[in-house]
Amino acid sequence: MLPTIAWRGRSVIMIDQRKLPGQEIYVRCRTYIQVAQAIEKMVVRGAPAIGIAAAYGLVLGTLALTAETGRSLDRDFEKVYKRLERTRPTARNLFWALERMRAVYERTRSEGLRVMRAALLDEARAIECEDAETNRAIGQHGQALLGDGWTVLTHCNAGALATAEYGTALGIIRAAVAAGKSIKVFADETRPFLQGARLTVWELDRDGIPVVLITDGMAGWFMRRGEIQAVVVGADRIARNGDTANKIGTYSLAVLAKENGVPFFVAAPMSTIDLTLPDGGGIPIEERNPDEVREVGGRLITVPYVEVRNPAFDVTPAAYITAIVTERGVHRPPYEKNLGGR
Amino acid sequence: MLPTIAWRGRSVIMIDQRKLPGQEIYVRCRTYIQVAQAIEKMVVRGAPAIGIAAAYGLVLGTLALTAETGRSLDRDFEKVYKRLERTRPTARNLFWALERMRAVYERTRSEGLRVMRAALLDEARAIECEDAETNRAIGQHGQALLGDGWTVLTHCNAGALATAEYGTALGIIRAAVAAGKSIKVFADETRPFLQGARLTVWELDRDGIPVVLITDGMAGWFMRRGEIQAVVVGADRIARNGDTANKIGTYSLAVLAKENGVPFFVAAPMSTIDLTLPDGGGIPIEERNPDEVREVGGRLITVPYVEVRNPAFDVTPAAYITAIVTERGVHRPPYEKNLGGR
Repeated sequence: MLPTIAWRGRSVIMIDQRKLPGQEIYVRCRTYIQVAQAIEKMVVRGAPAIGIAAAYGLVLGTLALTAETGRSLDRDFEKVYKRLERTRPTARNLFWALERMRAVYERTRSEGLRVMRAALLDEARAIECEDAETNRAIGQHGQALLGDGWTVLTHCNAGALATAEYGTALGIIRAAVAAGKSIKVFADETRPFLQGARLTVWELDRDGIPVVLITDGMAGWFMRRGEIQAVVVGADRIARNGDTANKIGTYSLAVLAKENGVPFFVAAPMSTIDLTLPDGGGIPIEERNPDEVREVGGRLITVPYVEVRNPAFDVTPAAYITAIVTERGVHRPPYEKNLGGR
Repeated sequence: MLPTIAWRGRSVIMIDQRKLPGQEIYVRCRTYIQVAQAIEKMVVRGAPAIGIAAAYGLVLGTLALTAETGRSLDRDFEKVYKRLERTRPTARNLFWALERMRAVYERTRSEGLRVMRAALLDEARAIECEDAETNRAIGQHGQALLGDGWTVLTHCNAGALATAEYGTALGIIRAAVAAGKSIKVFADETRPFLQGARLTVWELDRDGIPVVLITDGMAGWFMRRGEIQAVVVGADRIARNGDTANKIGTYSLAVLAKENGVPFFVAAPMSTIDLTLPDGGGIPIEERNPDEVREVGGRLITVPYVEVRNPAFDVTPAAYITAIVTERGVHRPPYEKNLGGR
């Protein structure tokens, strides 16, 4: 299996996540505009994967730069940067990756295009490699939270496809299985984009990890019936106090988990944490195209002109989160104290 | 608009609810087997509508009876009865309607086929007419619970299409609008069968009542944001203590409503109440075909062989229900005392 995103000869290759699992198609982006569009259209999605894609997108953008130095180089760089930055507003990792890339640009901009480009490519590769290592660490820390024989509910896809590889929430599940535990996964289908039905089921099936598909409205009922021992999800942005933006539906799961005494775990790299935000109130929530709700797989399911709301994320207050797992370990409340410091 | 179900010249006409809103197709059932299959395949659905369909189905079944009287008549009647009874297990109204029909059969069985058939047809028509009146009464009682300018969330379809006409949950909304209140409806799409996206949106749009379609995972987030002032749902079976079986996802909405201080109302005719059950633990929950979850509109959305759970209903404990509205009025807890007596 190719990784989710790969740099291959002056282009970025991505598996088209809109087409899975029906078709395994790879898309080649040769320009930063193509990368930006791939992020917007969700060819690639998942907070860490978006960050990696944007980093490589920036490399592609600098390949087309012509001004050698000075203000016109800065202006051209800024244009590429801004285009990639405005693709999706919620995931912290996008901005985090772009900021890392900008620091390298600023360090090398006076050394000529060749040096600068090589340094940027190295940095993008580092972001990708570190993410893979980070996920292994998240998996190791987090797997200790899961008991042998547990059924674990997950929402959306926080797996290999959302990251460089291995995954955050699914990384914890993979590590638990690798540690010899018998784990069964309930996957919410996750309307409207169906990341659960399409991506999480596909990933876990390929790994031979038992997975059961349910619709989003069923999760609470299975918690109530005692069939789920833990919930593990990813994150798109985590505020200093632990409030967590993640795929729409996550907040509901957290409330239902608390009501039923089921532990609720968030798995994310440190790059998802936004220390500039005191709480989740300041996290921008993307509202996407209403046709995502009106249609499934391009086919209309309702009255064509019906009004729709389509927030792609919600914010789960920290009070509902049992622990946040990063590459540094398992963080417990109060998150303000146990998460923020470096 | 034709009613949901109509008796027309020795046959039952139903609008095919699997095809809405894309196509308005009417199905004609000439035999009780066709009616039973229409209920099973959800050509017709909704607890009161299923009861009406079964009653007319029984009439069709008696049209084919040949034995004039005695034990062989009873045996033939029983065969028809049992076939209709085993179509769907959860909705109380199915059994309630069949029991009413059986009482008429027993009263008239010795008077000859012609008399018996006429009496059964009268009874089925009465069940249909009374349901329409019942819904108007539910609407009148329930509309007082909704404030002017409120946004009301509903789940699945408890509208005209789920009943003879007017609807239970949507009946309350219609009555509030008729009383001059400005009401906006948020409709959960209600996977897997999409009754919200397909039926509730269609009904409300035809009535000119503002409706906004959301996915099931969004409802809790809109409650949290203060955008929803009440939840109103229908019911398939209500136990003596108020525990309520309704479309899967209802339990989750009730928990989220309570957590966010949003009133949660159940609307149903008395025929949905099952006084033989002390609580919801005894309500049989139908598990339907896994392909309903694997597919949307006949198209696969996941790995074809993935394991699926597909309970069609869940049970909301009475503690989460602010009030139950029947044709008799608004019933408040304790339901054991305020609901049961005749």
